[in-house]
Amino acid sequence: MDTRRRFLQQTALGIAGTLSLPMLGTAAPYASFKKESPLQMGIAGYTFAKFDLDKSIEMMRRLNIKYLSVKEFHLPLNSSEATIKSVLGKLAQNDIKVYTVGVIYMKTKEAVDQAFSYAQKVGVDMIVGVPNYDLLDHSEQKVKETGIRLAIHNHGPEDAMYPGPQDVYDRIKDRDKRMGLCLDIGHATRAGADLVKSVQAHKDRLFDLHIKDVTGAVRDAKGAEVGRGVIDFNAFVKALNKVRYKGICSLEYEKDMTDPLAGMAESTGYFRGILASV
Amino acid sequence: MDTRRRFLQQTALGIAGTLSLPMLGTAAPYASFKKESPLQMGIAGYTFAKFDLDKSIEMMRRLNIKYLSVKEFHLPLNSSEATIKSVLGKLAQNDIKVYTVGVIYMKTKEAVDQAFSYAQKVGVDMIVGVPNYDLLDHSEQKVKETGIRLAIHNHGPEDAMYPGPQDVYDRIKDRDKRMGLCLDIGHATRAGADLVKSVQAHKDRLFDLHIKDVTGAVRDAKGAEVGRGVIDFNAFVKALNKVRYKGICSLEYEKDMTDPLAGMAESTGYFRGILASV
Repeated sequence: MDTRRRFLQQTALGIAGTLSLPMLGTAAPYASFKKESPLQMGIAGYTFAKFDLDKSIEMMRRLNIKYLSVKEFHLPLNSSEATIKSVLGKLAQNDIKVYTVGVIYMKTKEAVDQAFSYAQKVGVDMIVGVPNYDLLDHSEQKVKETGIRLAIHNHGPEDAMYPGPQDVYDRIKDRDKRMGLCLDIGHATRAGADLVKSVQAHKDRLFDLHIKDVTGAVRDAKGAEVGRGVIDFNAFVKALNKVRYKGICSLEYEKDMTDPLAGMAESTGYFRGILASV
Repeated sequence: MDTRRRFLQQTALGIAGTLSLPMLGTAAPYASFKKESPLQMGIAGYTFAKFDLDKSIEMMRRLNIKYLSVKEFHLPLNSSEATIKSVLGKLAQNDIKVYTVGVIYMKTKEAVDQAFSYAQKVGVDMIVGVPNYDLLDHSEQKVKETGIRLAIHNHGPEDAMYPGPQDVYDRIKDRDKRMGLCLDIGHATRAGADLVKSVQAHKDRLFDLHIKDVTGAVRDAKGAEVGRGVIDFNAFVKALNKVRYKGICSLEYEKDMTDPLAGMAESTGYFRGILASV
């Protein structure tokens, strides 16, 4: 069962039945003309680096986004089962599903073990992570042991290990099929990657997305509201549809990090406008 | 010369030459793939009913919107020339152009006269207004006298005079060609109008737009973020392009009026996403 379907089932069985009714009252009904895109938006937790969990939940509710890649500042890697239960419960009460954890940096064997153990306890089937090259063998072994997928995140031209998506793909393409890529489209663009070609080339290992825009296809480009930068979202979403991308499209908004709501809202609006018309 | 071209000329000659340089530094560069839509967004001033001019300017800058239909709470109808100069100057310093005034309700001959005199002093070539039926002759005479266009605003099923766009059109179609329609797409939808047909049918008199979404095509529907309601923005924007609509697309956001920025940002993002892909 693919991840999206699994979430939807879990949601249908778990959260939605008991908890989403209060939200239905505020949600607008969708007219029959609307072909809902199969692509769903999420949030990459780093977006909320300056906010506690309650404020983050409030923003997600406002944006009507229900999938979260949780970051360790909201759920520490060494959390007790009780803490995990409490945080997931609070999110579920607000109709938010943790679909993955990360980005988690792994520089030692112990850090790899901790990440997989944490993912198991949180109950996700995927980690977004950055293992050092010499930990790829061990990471693959943990993937096989646990059945948890590892999506390696590319981090732009200044990153020594994984600047662009090709740098990830080359190192996992001959490994277990549950090792793949979290394509950060902003960092990839700064690293000179062509997003449409990347989606096509890496489609069999494309597990997660960090959605953002950047002011240029150059190293020093800055983050921007989606639609204001240089990324061609039309072409990008068409490419996702063409390869039948099954993951979440998680906004990672890194501009105005102390006051991100307006930029996040504009970004999700723009992306959903593209989804509705492509 | 059509209005848009006139604004652009005025802007090129006036505001942009001296004032827009500071903004260029923060604006993201647009990549060559981007076919900029000929349609420009604006704000219908009523959106800012709960905010003073400074706060409103701050929101418009954040949203990167440069056209304003100014409402009388920011520039009273009986303003002195000095007040008008000061308000327009402050807006121009922030790269914002007042492209029309209104919505102005006109229940007496004196109110019609005042509205046209005000529009002349503000220096706009269009009023968005609602004249009583028995003032249409006088309004037409003022249009001929001043050369200022009058765009009559439809206000939904609870409005006794102009519930939908057809109710406006029927009363102006045989009058001076400078009498036309400010199509409020939310109220029109609640009044049962088909927006695509309205745009086509009224294209020769379609001067202005109030952009919003609504939760249903029924009288009691509520305002919603653009994209979350029942309006098919894809079809609507296609219809605008087909008739080569030359006016501004002004967002009128009436949800969360004490805290509208996030909803406005989502709405402008969505509408711009549609513009970029239709």
